[in-house]
Amino acid sequence: MNDYKRKLDIANGRVDLSHGAGGRAMGHLIEAIFHRAFDNDWLRAGNDQSAFPAPAGRMVMTTDGYVVSPLFFPGGNIGTLAVNGTINDIAMAGAVPLYLSASFIIEEGFPLADLERIADSMGAASREAGVPIITGDTKVVERGKADGVFISTAGVGRVPIGLDLRADAARPGDAVIISGSIGDHGVAVMSKRGNLEFDTAIASDSAALHGLVAAMVEAGGKHIRLMRDPTRGGIAATLNEIASQSTVGFHIDEEAIPLKPEVAAACEFLGLEPLNVANEGKLITVVAPAGADAVLAAMRAHPLGVEAMLIGHAVADENCFVQMTTSFGGGRIVDWLSGEQLPRIC
Amino acid sequence: MNDYKRKLDIANGRVDLSHGAGGRAMGHLIEAIFHRAFDNDWLRAGNDQSAFPAPAGRMVMTTDGYVVSPLFFPGGNIGTLAVNGTINDIAMAGAVPLYLSASFIIEEGFPLADLERIADSMGAASREAGVPIITGDTKVVERGKADGVFISTAGVGRVPIGLDLRADAARPGDAVIISGSIGDHGVAVMSKRGNLEFDTAIASDSAALHGLVAAMVEAGGKHIRLMRDPTRGGIAATLNEIASQSTVGFHIDEEAIPLKPEVAAACEFLGLEPLNVANEGKLITVVAPAGADAVLAAMRAHPLGVEAMLIGHAVADENCFVQMTTSFGGGRIVDWLSGEQLPRIC
Repeated sequence: MNDYKRKLDIANGRVDLSHGAGGRAMGHLIEAIFHRAFDNDWLRAGNDQSAFPAPAGRMVMTTDGYVVSPLFFPGGNIGTLAVNGTINDIAMAGAVPLYLSASFIIEEGFPLADLERIADSMGAASREAGVPIITGDTKVVERGKADGVFISTAGVGRVPIGLDLRADAARPGDAVIISGSIGDHGVAVMSKRGNLEFDTAIASDSAALHGLVAAMVEAGGKHIRLMRDPTRGGIAATLNEIASQSTVGFHIDEEAIPLKPEVAAACEFLGLEPLNVANEGKLITVVAPAGADAVLAAMRAHPLGVEAMLIGHAVADENCFVQMTTSFGGGRIVDWLSGEQLPRIC
Repeated sequence: MNDYKRKLDIANGRVDLSHGAGGRAMGHLIEAIFHRAFDNDWLRAGNDQSAFPAPAGRMVMTTDGYVVSPLFFPGGNIGTLAVNGTINDIAMAGAVPLYLSASFIIEEGFPLADLERIADSMGAASREAGVPIITGDTKVVERGKADGVFISTAGVGRVPIGLDLRADAARPGDAVIISGSIGDHGVAVMSKRGNLEFDTAIASDSAALHGLVAAMVEAGGKHIRLMRDPTRGGIAATLNEIASQSTVGFHIDEEAIPLKPEVAAACEFLGLEPLNVANEGKLITVVAPAGADAVLAAMRAHPLGVEAMLIGHAVADENCFVQMTTSFGGGRIVDWLSGEQLPRIC
């Protein structure tokens, strides 16, 4: 056997260009950090792809790139986001996530200890969700040509027979339900940004939502029009996208939207509108009137949906406006931002 | 309808942070560049994931990140590599590639015209291969935090019933066949590196190999032990990896390895060993003796395998050495590199 398992100095070492060059050093890195952290026979088989039995029926595929800054923040890090976020994009089709892939682009000089910490978090998130990372890739670029590490995950899942959720499926009269409080993730990341660090007890809500989704599908699958996780751009972007794709409007009630007082305070301090702030463990669902009560009850019975709220309804509106009744009793249009309120939030 | 399809100024515009922020600007960019270039109903549906009917039997999944520098080089660009390379990783399992995903991480200030050119190449490569890009993601990072654009593609494919290629399947006596000349891609990219640009007619061999693989599987599927595309680290790394994983040695014959004279000359000029230089449209296969002739004949009958050659055999060797008889009649060990001969070659 070649000397394939030589130990890296993880405590003090740094990633260098040889770790991305396809040679022995890359083998060491992958073995010592990724195979150990992700811990499954697919990766250990050492092929450039991994095989699995095809499920029956329809499948979904998704991908997301993660560039969050800083890499570590209260409640998670780039690795947990990369696992949970891609699981959530699968789950938003009502699907059961099955397998993930992970592509790492690493800046030369990145501490091996940080890479291990990220990989360990990904392994833990993947095991907790029951969705293994079965294949991956590692590239290294010169110092100054990336920012620590970027991770792109892709995932595949199985769609329950008969379910077909679509972005264009919302109809006037449908109920709009959110699974919990908004803005936690964005505020948690901003609280650790170098230029405006502030003290807060707020942690990211990063979580894998496929268990919640399974409960919702069981309770009212045939009534669920669609689900979306309101990440970048917050619930304002998500509702505007759905409105545009379904050609409906939405009327929502600000009072009904769960918002933690400390998140509200931080948003005020930072000059942010909570409706535009990213979430990583919440979903919005649009449900036909006949199923709204059952779906809401199923959500509240799940640990990730205890604070679920009916926040409004779809209405006929060919302008596709999202209108909100404010806490003060007035009304306003909720627009989505054209620009970047919070770059690199995920 | 919201103003979802406003034109970008592609000729003169640049990517800015708003294009990655989840709002309206991102919608414009995705619509004007990616949906148009990749041109399929999955993307136009505008969901965060795309659905497809599951095939029968076994599937494979793979991912690769692409960080090649420069982004454009003779014979291709980062986009064609990202499509063909991921198709090839699927094909190396003997599988039929079905669907791709693409995750873009873009540096602020990147010219929209270059992004369009890359996306157009990806669309063309995807259509030529018959493998649609059905889902994607776009992130933008600040100027100086990436290097133009990085692309991570993932793919899924269907494994023909009864086929099970594995990296640990090589046995002493097996034939080692390469599909064509080595080193073209690495030399083509190096010829455009800012610090050592030189004139050459050499183009990257970037190509999708699944058609060649299908012909090989049809001709001798039950005799094929494994296939690998010798990308980063070249055929030296690939043979050493297989040797290590299968616990065999290899004896190869330098004279038999196809190498274009101009690639040989460029390697000498650059101080590179052609065996270590990356390929993007070649494969190495290890075939049981009974099937070697049939597989070689099938390869030569395919446009991407006309120069296929039997270059050696697997041998019993618990040291897993790759030994080469040189053109001068001597012998030497072909080691894989520990370090980076050619960073960012793919």
